[in-house]
Amino acid sequence: MGRNVYLQKKSRLEAKNLLFERFDSLSTEIENVNVPDSTGRVLSEAVFAKISSPNFHSSAMDGIAIKAEETFSASEREPLKLDIGKTAFHINTGHVIPEDCNSVIMIEDVIEGENDELFIEAPVYPWKNVRKMGEDIVATEIIYTKGHTITPYCIGALLSAGIFKVNVKKKPRVLIIPTGSEIFDWKNDKIENFEQGKVIESNSYVLAAMCEESGAEPKVHNILVDDLDLIKKVVSENHKFDIILIIGGSSAGSFDYSKPVIESLGDVFVHGVTMMPGKPVIMGDIEEKPIFGMPGYPVSTIIVFEQFVKPLIERLIGKGSFDRQKVEITPVKKISSKIGVEEFLRVSLGVVGDKVVATPLPRGSGNITSLTKADGIIKIPSNIEGIKSNESVTCELIRPFSIIKNRIVAVGSHDNSIDLIEDQIKDVNSSLTISSSHVGSMGGILAMKNGTCHIAGTHLLDPEDGSYNVSYIKKHLEGHNVKLVNLVLRDQGFIIPRGNPKNIKDVNDLLRDDIFFMNRQAGSGTRILLDYTLKENNISKNLINGYEDEEFTHMSVAVSVLSGRADVGLGIYAAAKALNLDFIPVVTEQYDLIIKEEYFETVNIQNLLETVNSDKFKKRVEQLGGYGTSMTGKIII
Amino acid sequence: MGRNVYLQKKSRLEAKNLLFERFDSLSTEIENVNVPDSTGRVLSEAVFAKISSPNFHSSAMDGIAIKAEETFSASEREPLKLDIGKTAFHINTGHVIPEDCNSVIMIEDVIEGENDELFIEAPVYPWKNVRKMGEDIVATEIIYTKGHTITPYCIGALLSAGIFKVNVKKKPRVLIIPTGSEIFDWKNDKIENFEQGKVIESNSYVLAAMCEESGAEPKVHNILVDDLDLIKKVVSENHKFDIILIIGGSSAGSFDYSKPVIESLGDVFVHGVTMMPGKPVIMGDIEEKPIFGMPGYPVSTIIVFEQFVKPLIERLIGKGSFDRQKVEITPVKKISSKIGVEEFLRVSLGVVGDKVVATPLPRGSGNITSLTKADGIIKIPSNIEGIKSNESVTCELIRPFSIIKNRIVAVGSHDNSIDLIEDQIKDVNSSLTISSSHVGSMGGILAMKNGTCHIAGTHLLDPEDGSYNVSYIKKHLEGHNVKLVNLVLRDQGFIIPRGNPKNIKDVNDLLRDDIFFMNRQAGSGTRILLDYTLKENNISKNLINGYEDEEFTHMSVAVSVLSGRADVGLGIYAAAKALNLDFIPVVTEQYDLIIKEEYFETVNIQNLLETVNSDKFKKRVEQLGGYGTSMTGKIII
Repeated sequence: MGRNVYLQKKSRLEAKNLLFERFDSLSTEIENVNVPDSTGRVLSEAVFAKISSPNFHSSAMDGIAIKAEETFSASEREPLKLDIGKTAFHINTGHVIPEDCNSVIMIEDVIEGENDELFIEAPVYPWKNVRKMGEDIVATEIIYTKGHTITPYCIGALLSAGIFKVNVKKKPRVLIIPTGSEIFDWKNDKIENFEQGKVIESNSYVLAAMCEESGAEPKVHNILVDDLDLIKKVVSENHKFDIILIIGGSSAGSFDYSKPVIESLGDVFVHGVTMMPGKPVIMGDIEEKPIFGMPGYPVSTIIVFEQFVKPLIERLIGKGSFDRQKVEITPVKKISSKIGVEEFLRVSLGVVGDKVVATPLPRGSGNITSLTKADGIIKIPSNIEGIKSNESVTCELIRPFSIIKNRIVAVGSHDNSIDLIEDQIKDVNSSLTISSSHVGSMGGILAMKNGTCHIAGTHLLDPEDGSYNVSYIKKHLEGHNVKLVNLVLRDQGFIIPRGNPKNIKDVNDLLRDDIFFMNRQAGSGTRILLDYTLKENNISKNLINGYEDEEFTHMSVAVSVLSGRADVGLGIYAAAKALNLDFIPVVTEQYDLIIKEEYFETVNIQNLLETVNSDKFKKRVEQLGGYGTSMTGKIII
Repeated sequence: MGRNVYLQKKSRLEAKNLLFERFDSLSTEIENVNVPDSTGRVLSEAVFAKISSPNFHSSAMDGIAIKAEETFSASEREPLKLDIGKTAFHINTGHVIPEDCNSVIMIEDVIEGENDELFIEAPVYPWKNVRKMGEDIVATEIIYTKGHTITPYCIGALLSAGIFKVNVKKKPRVLIIPTGSEIFDWKNDKIENFEQGKVIESNSYVLAAMCEESGAEPKVHNILVDDLDLIKKVVSENHKFDIILIIGGSSAGSFDYSKPVIESLGDVFVHGVTMMPGKPVIMGDIEEKPIFGMPGYPVSTIIVFEQFVKPLIERLIGKGSFDRQKVEITPVKKISSKIGVEEFLRVSLGVVGDKVVATPLPRGSGNITSLTKADGIIKIPSNIEGIKSNESVTCELIRPFSIIKNRIVAVGSHDNSIDLIEDQIKDVNSSLTISSSHVGSMGGILAMKNGTCHIAGTHLLDPEDGSYNVSYIKKHLEGHNVKLVNLVLRDQGFIIPRGNPKNIKDVNDLLRDDIFFMNRQAGSGTRILLDYTLKENNISKNLINGYEDEEFTHMSVAVSVLSGRADVGLGIYAAAKALNLDFIPVVTEQYDLIIKEEYFETVNIQNLLETVNSDKFKKRVEQLGGYGTSMTGKIII
């Protein structure tokens, strides 16, 4: 079958040590750059001040320069007349103290007498209100040491010290080679040619942007098809680069050519690291230069870059690697993890009450959105089986904590109008964000009970009286003070393929042998609605093909129908419309937000309600189709 | 006298509100950029996915694709033979699941029989090891909302969603006009023309770099001399810019033209804010565009930029303003502050034991190094008189906390060799930094006692027996377990002007009427050495001119001599040599490091000792002159 085999897999730390030891003496050249253009660069040597700042005794105030000793007799009883032009001199801030003077009287302390005569009523002491020569910088002192990264502030200190050019480490040049016959070259190809089985090339641009952030100069190569000789030729022709990253083909499959390519030109010293995502990484050495086989899955390739390539770049330019900010978090639910693998779990965070709560995001390393939606990463060590809910663990932040603090945490049933709120709330408060986790209506009520969210979206029908949400709140949130605000009325119905090829008419068609239904998860409002409808129609759920197959969102149900996995699913009109599917309305339901009373008057929630109540929001909701806004913003309880 | 007057000064918050209200509806245009070039840009509208990712059901593993239902009979007792090519198909990770298949058997779970026949011993369930279409991104869903700042990760999500170009806010164009007849144009002038009273232009480049960091596009204008008509002409010709910053002349002095310039072309609505540094700021409005009079002192201008201009830029591009990370700190000593003024106190930080200790840096707003050396800023509210030592207060970080955590805090006497350690320790540990505060030898011992430092540099002579440091440790650090390690032997002597114009020979010359001496502060080793020498020579300190005048470092003493403030000072050879002054050796003394025993075995301190013991360090110290290294690295107690 032509498969490779992994070398003995290393732990992340072992692999990093091997990498750093092997390229211990590697370095990049030095270049001389203008100080104003040096932000972000790393000094290759210590810099010494050429001149002092100030380079003269200067006045720190607007006032009168004088020799302090001349003023010692001044008092309120016997004001001293200043001999302007002879021993006392008008001076502005920043100007040179005249010869023989050693202090400055603030202009506010000078009294005007007759004939423009000036008096003082108190002495000044020597060097009062004088910025002494060298007060800020003394010529010859070290301004910055080797390895210092220049910030905008530093530009001020360097120029003030008479340093106009500095020696910095040259940016290491990184060649990024995307490989894979399935990779779609959107830059040079037409989007019409993007067919099933193709994957849009994105990793090379992500890695290029990360190279730039890390202080390297990236170059993205054209995409190479899976052809060992071609990849080998390109790699061997490009040894002028400091680092080469081959993306894709780093695993042990039959078309994974990165390892054979590197082995034919040099040496592979790591293949496989016990971390997830990022396991299939290759580290090699061709003519004493580092080359990496980067995994093709986007999250894996990013984690591998951050754990190995970035620190190596920083080492090359002599810059320290600094850890991300860490916070203690509480997971909203139990998280299990595999023994023997260090996991980088992406989580979304929010501050609810006095806790930072963490909601795990999907773990698949192919899911780039699990990283772009993440606020932090929890590293679960390889010897740990998981984390209990309510167990406090450390989380590395990938977003500033102030973003996380200024966030409304929404948990519960999903509705597209929540995305619209998030978009539009920026008009009211540009720093405010909303994170929403989709766990169904009952999941939202549970989160509200556990204190892990600010708001919960629910659409729970009470089969007894046809009311929504109120009876569920009374039953499950007893003792919790909450408000209930209507967000939208919305149509639920059958999502079916365009043209209704199986001629579905109503709920009785779900019993047909040739119909496969896609269900929603237990506890979701849609599931309760389905069960209610089935009962009303005396239909046994056991007879429905696919009743056991569950999806978690309206959009996933619609995708199932679009892809042919299912013939029909119950969901909202917006989801059908979004994917250009057909829709048979079944019922109009009430979708509300439960809001904890203690947060109701906070600025964030008030901003949210202001947004919800705006005509613009209602109009946008109605444009989605399948929605009514006649109750939108109404406080129900 | 032609002075302006301040408008009624505003608080920082009042001024910011006035600014934001006035330019509430101001906005910048929109431009369309390629996604790979969009890092750091801010979306001007929500972005919706054009295609799903994956856009097909794909294999999550290398293995065999099959319809799960076909495998239900497989067991260890009755392995199922796979019908390769008919109902079971080899598949690689990422490839399309064949028609009629709905799961993938991992290759590791397949058993090879005779004649290359393949078997499985357990069933798979539907959709096992399959990445379902839309698992990551569903076409039509919102990928990012308006106001989202694009990161490298986001590039991956955007491209995967079939979005290759995005609409972002145009970078606001900021014109920066440095003014002042005293400003030296180092870029176009010769350094030989840099004379006393001139100030090297640096603010415009600092502000330009900060504009870029904030998302604006800066342009630095030529320096303008103090000429009202000229400044007015330049401002009025440049109304195409979104924001104008005039640097200098924002105060109320007679040559401060920013206010008259703005008033003649538009409207000044803020002049003077009750904050320090940054008080003399002007906010104006010319044809509905913002114009600022920025203070000329570097720290003031930076604080004004960060408090007002940066948030305005962020508002223009629709990006939220996010706070800096905050930590609770303990000041090493009492900090007093002026009532009625909000102070931005710059502090250097270090983690000692379980506390984050803060050492205040010089407060002068002309001292750029007070900001470049700072790790954080403590905002002392205007209604507070100060902070007690050991009182916990909040500090905004301007450097990542991981830098602060990985830092050796040195407090005590200053020696240039500590700067060399800081430079050279990077070879051993590129993430490690040293912060050193100069408070004299006794100040270092006090800090050691109070637990606010890791190491303290001391050179305290015991006049009884001529020993150094040991008797002081016994007396003042009783009960504290410390180690004492020699750093250097060094010459102390008289620092005098080049050529010794006043013909100073020895300590007796300090008694001369025509000699002005510059002393070091009480508690410094040099002061104790002086007093000891005076006593040995039966000289009364009261008879020495300048005995009461104190400086805190060797370099400041040398600067006093260089500038003519003093004729002689006691200090180290290196300081004299650095400023090209002459030196008369008086004594060779022992300069040691006190190290708390509990930190002695830490990686950081061991890295420091490794550096101190290296031949390279000793050689560099000796090259400074006036040093001996025969005891360097020796553990004394």
